[in-house]
Amino acid sequence: MNIDGKPYRTIWLADDGRAVEVIDQTRLPHVFSVRRLVTMTDVAEAIRTMVVRGAPLIGAAGAYGMAVAMADDPSDAMLARAYAALLETRPTAVNLRWALDALRALLLPLPPEQRRVAAYARAAAICDEDVEICRAIGGNGLPLIEQIAGRKRGGERVNALTHCNAGWLATVDWGTALAPIYRAHDAGIPIHVWVDETRPRNQGASLTAFELGRHGVPHTVIADNLGGHLMQHGMVDVCIVGTDRTTRNGDVCNKIGTYLKALAAHDNGVPFYVGLPWPTIDWTLSDGVRSIPIEQRDAREVSHISGRTACGTVETVALLPDDSAAANYGFDVTPARLVTALITERGVCPASEAGLLSLYPERRTRQSA
Amino acid sequence: MNIDGKPYRTIWLADDGRAVEVIDQTRLPHVFSVRRLVTMTDVAEAIRTMVVRGAPLIGAAGAYGMAVAMADDPSDAMLARAYAALLETRPTAVNLRWALDALRALLLPLPPEQRRVAAYARAAAICDEDVEICRAIGGNGLPLIEQIAGRKRGGERVNALTHCNAGWLATVDWGTALAPIYRAHDAGIPIHVWVDETRPRNQGASLTAFELGRHGVPHTVIADNLGGHLMQHGMVDVCIVGTDRTTRNGDVCNKIGTYLKALAAHDNGVPFYVGLPWPTIDWTLSDGVRSIPIEQRDAREVSHISGRTACGTVETVALLPDDSAAANYGFDVTPARLVTALITERGVCPASEAGLLSLYPERRTRQSA
Repeated sequence: MNIDGKPYRTIWLADDGRAVEVIDQTRLPHVFSVRRLVTMTDVAEAIRTMVVRGAPLIGAAGAYGMAVAMADDPSDAMLARAYAALLETRPTAVNLRWALDALRALLLPLPPEQRRVAAYARAAAICDEDVEICRAIGGNGLPLIEQIAGRKRGGERVNALTHCNAGWLATVDWGTALAPIYRAHDAGIPIHVWVDETRPRNQGASLTAFELGRHGVPHTVIADNLGGHLMQHGMVDVCIVGTDRTTRNGDVCNKIGTYLKALAAHDNGVPFYVGLPWPTIDWTLSDGVRSIPIEQRDAREVSHISGRTACGTVETVALLPDDSAAANYGFDVTPARLVTALITERGVCPASEAGLLSLYPERRTRQSA
Repeated sequence: MNIDGKPYRTIWLADDGRAVEVIDQTRLPHVFSVRRLVTMTDVAEAIRTMVVRGAPLIGAAGAYGMAVAMADDPSDAMLARAYAALLETRPTAVNLRWALDALRALLLPLPPEQRRVAAYARAAAICDEDVEICRAIGGNGLPLIEQIAGRKRGGERVNALTHCNAGWLATVDWGTALAPIYRAHDAGIPIHVWVDETRPRNQGASLTAFELGRHGVPHTVIADNLGGHLMQHGMVDVCIVGTDRTTRNGDVCNKIGTYLKALAAHDNGVPFYVGLPWPTIDWTLSDGVRSIPIEQRDAREVSHISGRTACGTVETVALLPDDSAAANYGFDVTPARLVTALITERGVCPASEAGLLSLYPERRTRQSA
């Protein structure tokens, strides 16, 4: 997508053909800066400190981390060390493990002198595959937005609501939930996005607002509390969110608060779509609410917040009384019954086992036979 | 209620018998300070700048504003001027208008030399009446909490969830939604409160957390996004919120985001109670979603936030990209179908016209005859 007219990805090979460059997402929306990652340790640190975040992007970064390691030292010992160090940065990230496994399986049988070239090629391919998956999600979701636009009187805008950041900053390009929105915008459909600020980490206010704004998509940031009121008053035509993990039966584990918006959408007859690439589908689970463990994060994300002071510096301030406790669960599960449809790289399907199997028939064999 | 063991109200007559003192709520939770209001203009300014807030407290402050004015100059001209100046501070506040009308009706027929004493007496009575109403709401809500506690195994805590601040800081004492919680706590029932931070103004994080903490009630501040997840996992036994306006049929207009919590409570079988004093019932309305106009507030409440820096000063920081718009509606309407019951100073009733009329039969005559 574009930043003020210039196309970007979130991660790319530096001009020396060896280092990797990424957008530093910890400084958004206040400062746009590119970080150069020269060593494997730089990449690991960037993942750990959320300079890069979002499941697909973390996978791509992990792959490049392996490549950078091989450029430095293509030995078996380094291969093992890089795999372990990168995996340890976000041990529960499914895409990261998948990318590291792919690189290790590719590199281990090769003689060390061939590893560098092979690793960079595979890392680049992983990035390109992610872009293609996201572009396809966008293409599959686009007709849903076109239908809504078709029911509007001439020129009236389509209002979408999204939660957290499932845009291009979470992937290599395009995004998952936001891909159909970018496709619609680029196709000339007048679309406006209500952006949930997404407390406590404010990914909506910081990242989604930034990327929509820089690409030129009209949007308005709102407190997470507002969506229900907007839906009651016909001010939302469609909700589109991402997912961190989707069960076999279509339950959607996504950023905390997603479930509340799905309830409001259901109560007001607003379609609620989830955009997802295949790696987020967990075929082993079929009751999201009961079986997905929810990460508890640092209470400081609730009790403190960072922002830009009047003089332009970024400062962290405390919001609570000193002795008040805070709790911080990172995700919730939206039951499939509240999800209108899933939008994947293969098409659109009902949020159900039958729906998912209609798009991924190869998954039918083992578990459903 | 207590602040670190010392009983307080939110407003009281100063020791000179003439000025009024209030807790400065704009500085909470970071600084506890008492503001002395000497002139009618001081009182008007305190209401306007939200040094005092909460419908019942604004009414009480307005009454004392009239008294302070009469101490200064008991003329007809001052009476008219004080009425107009105080009303103008928050023109849509029902309690404020009611209190000012009461004072004007009392004072106007009196000879000027009797007005000062009468005004102070009436202002004090309005405060005492508010305390009695809130205490009664607490008493009527207490059995609901006792029932929940009775179903718990020995010593297990009752978990309540509340939104915004409908505690003693919004009234003269006790609060509305929090009155049953204080009664339960004071009666020795182990109760813990999940406090929604309540973006964008953070009344939960700032005020509810402060007042619960200072009175010694165990509580945990959470992002507004979290309540649905907690209810899905049995971690909330009861929701209790306040209301700014309640329609004849039991629709509840309260702080933005209340509706989302009511949806989650309904979806998970968690009782959802609303605590209210009679003045918030609007007997002229019977469709809250369609007929209550919702105030749009300054977008800056969404785009900026204040907190305590590491060096102890309070600073405001910007959260959004510079060119992102923000929208800010202050309230939403929870339809009566999602409300388990209303708790008023007269008792507990279903959220319906029949329910409200069972407690307020004198309202039956005109509209329902």
